[in-house]
Amino acid sequence: MPAPIVFYFDFSSPYSYLASEQIADLAARHGRPVDYRPTLLGVAFRATGQRPLVDVPMKGEYSRRDMARSARLAGIDFRMPEKFPISTVQAARVFLALQAQQPGHALAFLHGAFRAYFAQGRDISDAGVIHELLLSLGADADAVLAAAAQPGIKDQLKQAVDASIAGGVFGAPFFVVDDEPFWGFDRLPQIERWLASGPF
Amino acid sequence: MPAPIVFYFDFSSPYSYLASEQIADLAARHGRPVDYRPTLLGVAFRATGQRPLVDVPMKGEYSRRDMARSARLAGIDFRMPEKFPISTVQAARVFLALQAQQPGHALAFLHGAFRAYFAQGRDISDAGVIHELLLSLGADADAVLAAAAQPGIKDQLKQAVDASIAGGVFGAPFFVVDDEPFWGFDRLPQIERWLASGPF
Repeated sequence: MPAPIVFYFDFSSPYSYLASEQIADLAARHGRPVDYRPTLLGVAFRATGQRPLVDVPMKGEYSRRDMARSARLAGIDFRMPEKFPISTVQAARVFLALQAQQPGHALAFLHGAFRAYFAQGRDISDAGVIHELLLSLGADADAVLAAAAQPGIKDQLKQAVDASIAGGVFGAPFFVVDDEPFWGFDRLPQIERWLASGPF
Repeated sequence: MPAPIVFYFDFSSPYSYLASEQIADLAARHGRPVDYRPTLLGVAFRATGQRPLVDVPMKGEYSRRDMARSARLAGIDFRMPEKFPISTVQAARVFLALQAQQPGHALAFLHGAFRAYFAQGRDISDAGVIHELLLSLGADADAVLAAAAQPGIKDQLKQAVDASIAGGVFGAPFFVVDDEPFWGFDRLPQIERWLASGPF
């Protein structure tokens, strides 16, 4: 089995959303699976002394323009949410709970949650929105939300986030391909080249 | 005359160096001139509360790897200087003085200074290095350095930097194409697409 592309994402990261729409096809073109790993940018930012991009003077304004422009160029439906950023702890826990209990729904939830937030403007920090989303996917919403609230999943997310930061994951989207780290939606062309031709 | 691509750069910015190696050819492919404008990242960073990329925990380590990798992929000779970052006030003033007095040498100095620092590891904050560089280009080194030390050029740089920051230039390389801003060496493909097919 070829080594997976490890893809770290945060449900409140616009560029993670854009990457989530392309990474599976990119990986498939090179016979690689994708290992989807939620992380929490708030924790990473505290560890590195960074602020959310949109809060940096001037850079914030530019980044909103760049996000929308990059989405248009990629042909991905995108609308900057009014409420931004949001807490994504629950969405991340639900993703892990699905992977553990109803794995067939995990990837559909990932795409559904990203699109709900960044294309439809729905607030996925709201438990009611998450519940509706799970139902619409045909998942057992109550069982998943109950599991996501248990210490087991909470600890799993905490350990996963701590491990990602210990491994140098300071932002999202962040990819690891054969031990080589790549940060940002705009590094997908480098990843594609790496997979096609080997290290450069 | 088609509108120029405005290219803001700092002589101590690795990605500005990479962009400086490609922007003229890119512009020429689309019949555009390039308007080269030095800025000072130190001033921009104070205005926006940012730190130099390489000083951010984790992100700094990653960025050194990404700079070298991006240079290799682009086929550009690159070696991270031991002394980094450096003051680029004098190099920027010399560039402006050349534009004013010996314009035929300005672009050669720009490339020479970037390559001296990022390919040959020479400290271009050292007036002696700048002097040698000017001589090697066939410029009148003494006249240029004297002009660069006059209030006229000092004021011109200060005003140019202030104007760039007032215009939203928070980093480098930074480009403006037909009023559209693009930040980063990795946005050259978007600029190329913009020039080829119009706004997207």
